[in-house]
Amino acid sequence: MKTLTIKQLLQKDSTLQDVKVQGWVRTRRDLKSQSFVELNDGSCRQNLQLVIDNSNPSFEKILPDLVNGAAIYAEGDLIISPAKGQKYELSVKKMELYGPSSQETYPIQKKKTSDEFLRTVAHLRARTNKYSSMLRIRSELSFAIHKYFRDNGFFYVHTPIITASDCEGAGRMFNVTTFDTSKPMEFPLTKDKTTDFSKDLFGKKTFLTVSGQLEGETMALSLGKIYTFGPTFRAENSNTYRHAAEFWMIEPEIAFYDIYDDMDLAEDFVKKITSHVREHCASDIELFSKFLDKDLPSTLSNIIDNSYERLAYTDAVSILEKENSRFEAKVSWGVDLASEHERFLTEIYFKKPVIMYNKPKNVAAFYMKLNDDGKTVRGMDLLVPRIGELIGGSERENRLDVLEKKMDDFKMNKEAYWWYLDLRRFGSVPHAGFGLGFERMMMLITGISNIRDVCCYPRVPGYAEF
Amino acid sequence: MKTLTIKQLLQKDSTLQDVKVQGWVRTRRDLKSQSFVELNDGSCRQNLQLVIDNSNPSFEKILPDLVNGAAIYAEGDLIISPAKGQKYELSVKKMELYGPSSQETYPIQKKKTSDEFLRTVAHLRARTNKYSSMLRIRSELSFAIHKYFRDNGFFYVHTPIITASDCEGAGRMFNVTTFDTSKPMEFPLTKDKTTDFSKDLFGKKTFLTVSGQLEGETMALSLGKIYTFGPTFRAENSNTYRHAAEFWMIEPEIAFYDIYDDMDLAEDFVKKITSHVREHCASDIELFSKFLDKDLPSTLSNIIDNSYERLAYTDAVSILEKENSRFEAKVSWGVDLASEHERFLTEIYFKKPVIMYNKPKNVAAFYMKLNDDGKTVRGMDLLVPRIGELIGGSERENRLDVLEKKMDDFKMNKEAYWWYLDLRRFGSVPHAGFGLGFERMMMLITGISNIRDVCCYPRVPGYAEF
Repeated sequence: MKTLTIKQLLQKDSTLQDVKVQGWVRTRRDLKSQSFVELNDGSCRQNLQLVIDNSNPSFEKILPDLVNGAAIYAEGDLIISPAKGQKYELSVKKMELYGPSSQETYPIQKKKTSDEFLRTVAHLRARTNKYSSMLRIRSELSFAIHKYFRDNGFFYVHTPIITASDCEGAGRMFNVTTFDTSKPMEFPLTKDKTTDFSKDLFGKKTFLTVSGQLEGETMALSLGKIYTFGPTFRAENSNTYRHAAEFWMIEPEIAFYDIYDDMDLAEDFVKKITSHVREHCASDIELFSKFLDKDLPSTLSNIIDNSYERLAYTDAVSILEKENSRFEAKVSWGVDLASEHERFLTEIYFKKPVIMYNKPKNVAAFYMKLNDDGKTVRGMDLLVPRIGELIGGSERENRLDVLEKKMDDFKMNKEAYWWYLDLRRFGSVPHAGFGLGFERMMMLITGISNIRDVCCYPRVPGYAEF
Repeated sequence: MKTLTIKQLLQKDSTLQDVKVQGWVRTRRDLKSQSFVELNDGSCRQNLQLVIDNSNPSFEKILPDLVNGAAIYAEGDLIISPAKGQKYELSVKKMELYGPSSQETYPIQKKKTSDEFLRTVAHLRARTNKYSSMLRIRSELSFAIHKYFRDNGFFYVHTPIITASDCEGAGRMFNVTTFDTSKPMEFPLTKDKTTDFSKDLFGKKTFLTVSGQLEGETMALSLGKIYTFGPTFRAENSNTYRHAAEFWMIEPEIAFYDIYDDMDLAEDFVKKITSHVREHCASDIELFSKFLDKDLPSTLSNIIDNSYERLAYTDAVSILEKENSRFEAKVSWGVDLASEHERFLTEIYFKKPVIMYNKPKNVAAFYMKLNDDGKTVRGMDLLVPRIGELIGGSERENRLDVLEKKMDDFKMNKEAYWWYLDLRRFGSVPHAGFGLGFERMMMLITGISNIRDVCCYPRVPGYAEF
């Protein structure tokens, strides 16, 4: 007798004799002659109802143990359920307890379901409907991303996590060392009283990556189309609903692409992966539509069915300037748009996803390609309702002289980027790419409003538990 | 006219007029009236041969630029090639140079192809046959792994990279901090002159993960079947051909599995992903069979076609003791087997993959389930020819009292693992899992003998370049 998952059982075309299931008890109800147990094994959102003849003496000993959180296995016949809302139930013939629980001390109780509380028991929150659905969606979204890129001729590359270079020239990186950070007095020092990194494992100061883009560019200029999908880090003290210190990022990079190809790819990619998840996780998505966010179906349709507005930054400013009375931060040409402006454009003005491009060079990263106007660069942001910026990308500066000048302007150490500059010395081509924050995509697809609740174990300021 | 990749063109059923390709020049040969350029775009191992009428004045200017490493696009007709070894070639009508190269300074030269040299130009080595094939295999192997688990009802979870706990109780972890590691004199200190981590971003001392297993167990005891696939780190000064400081690991964890289920899964998994890659990367694998390792086809057949030996540690010792004259380290019951012993078993004695299980508890991790004999634990290692240990796994100790005693024996801080122990307090079930080092799997599949050469950018002692 093979054990089947509840998902497998509920997909059966017909009833079955002598099946075996295993899982965790969610609830038990006792009637006069029968007890009903809702069993969940994580394979799907649905529970399997176990129907137990509680007058049967062989169940006498186990019945009191069938409380929320207990792990059991059960054998019996899968029969048509007379109850509403479920196709089958299990008429139990035999049961065994794997591990008990406790009605008093089991942390996951019906009454204590606030997100804040569940974060403190994140090791068990995946046993709730909400978080198990979230995690199944997270898994399927990951697969959708890999599948999309593979279907379109991209190669997955693993760019390094520990790095000696800082992609964006900013100082918001975690430091990594083998020296015991508890005992700074014992760090080996050079004559000038700074750390002697020649004695560290890598022989130099190292950090956690903030982006795999620069390394990704090297791979795109060999393999053509590549993407990364890995963890990235920001050592920023940002305590907001949408910032985490550790998050996963997807960064495609494509040789021979310009900014317009890049925008087309971003639109197609977001549509296809959203559509994939809506189809393959219909039941888990339904949970969020029903209990968390009634507008989720229309949010997803908005993402999947609309064609995304292409909006030059200069045109965005024209629109926003007229609405300045709405905004805390007033808009004029040259400012870096804030979340309130981005959300106005996508949620209120266009009511659909917007790809804003050609931003001013003074608010752009050093690697974005300068336009002929000398004022704007070929950067783009995909703005979506609820989230604001979902994707940021650009065509990359592929002219050696222009890039070197830009790096000087940014006061960057060009010697450290000799290999990045080599890409412009030898066989330089137009190329472009973008970055998608995986957790932001999860927030968009589930309607979950805090980034802490779309991770297994969030890493945010003051919090590295589990 | 749509641009096609060389892979797409070579798969065409018939010749085509007016196609456009883009890529990097590998070589050019000039004959009297024709020049031949081998063009590669990274989409596949094969080059496309461009045939250029060099008497055509419109090509006069560009021809000298068509040297190794230059990036071009070309338009023309895809015609049947009269040359051997290629189906089609491109009769060029129009060409344009994207980015030049230099015959003198371009680092990737036919003569300088040692692995050691190519590591120093790892940003360009993906433009060689060997490394582009390796990277395409790496991508497809990753996909095969995701596909295998999804097809078998597993969910992909992203366990944290930054952690405050040390899975194996060992001190080989990288430290992570926002304090400037260059300036240890400026770290905030407590009264006892150790670092005041309450002022660090997470409020406590943090590390890079060495394994996602413990967090993975929490997810398996909710979702049933899960796996991780992410980077892990070892701050060890191991300068060997098979150790890296940063590597990717795959760790499935399955509720309701015992050690025998775990071994069956490991065997099936390794067979299926190897078989997937052999099928989908036939041409890239062929490159390694031809030029690097003539035995690769039989190595892969050995992995795919054999049934893997199940060998209890005690029986392994019986076999090895008789061969002690061969070994540097002599074998007797209780010792931790070394690579020489493992390779003897799999390469010479059984000549096929071997799964060794039930190892002595004194050489096993704290979380492995104690057998009833009180001496051995339900750990297992998959040993394969050339690599030795490819996979290590175990059934996990699911009895609270036994686990707590084990943690005391290991002098671990049980309070820090309250959440891990909770899994044994509430709904504990038999469960098991294993870890596969992704780079070791890559070495097995390609025959590449140094872990530095199966990564985009290796991270090993003394080396964190790019």
